[in-house]
Amino acid sequence: MRYIIVYDITDDNLRTLTSETLKDYGLKRIQKSAFMGSLKKHALNSLLTDLRRMVNVDSVIVFPLCDSDFRNMVSIGKEFVEEEKQDVQFF
Amino acid sequence: MRYIIVYDITDDNLRTLTSETLKDYGLKRIQKSAFMGSLKKHALNSLLTDLRRMVNVDSVIVFPLCDSDFRNMVSIGKEFVEEEKQDVQFF
Repeated sequence: MRYIIVYDITDDNLRTLTSETLKDYGLKRIQKSAFMGSLKKHALNSLLTDLRRMVNVDSVIVFPLCDSDFRNMVSIGKEFVEEEKQDVQFF
Repeated sequence: MRYIIVYDITDDNLRTLTSETLKDYGLKRIQKSAFMGSLKKHALNSLLTDLRRMVNVDSVIVFPLCDSDFRNMVSIGKEFVEEEKQDVQFF
């Protein structure tokens, strides 16, 4: 299943640790504080466990994104490329 | 339909204008650069027109969020309250 992860994290080190963790799980950065990618159930559960251990006062929200929602996404401004075909990191 | 809007906008004035625009459409802030809410088709089209006029070099991504995806959202850290029942602005 595909997921979008968005976060508001104040501490620089924790924010870096969070983005590195998301990259470790193979997720692609689509904005400064937003990642996207596909995860199997066990990987999602492992990621949630890691994030719950790291994040307390800040906010991380994980959205599943079904195929229909993904197809109907709209990107405005900087071009956003579908992550399966290309590396989505575009800045 | 429910939508999530996430943005990366460098200019302070434009970022404020964007968030004010999203509020004008009745969307609720769920993180500093993320809003959520329900929009009818014509309101979505009007919002997209406004955003395309405002945003060029930055990035705004609009995701539809079907009921199933919404039910399976996971919020870590700061409590995120389902926007239909309460005002989601929690900071």
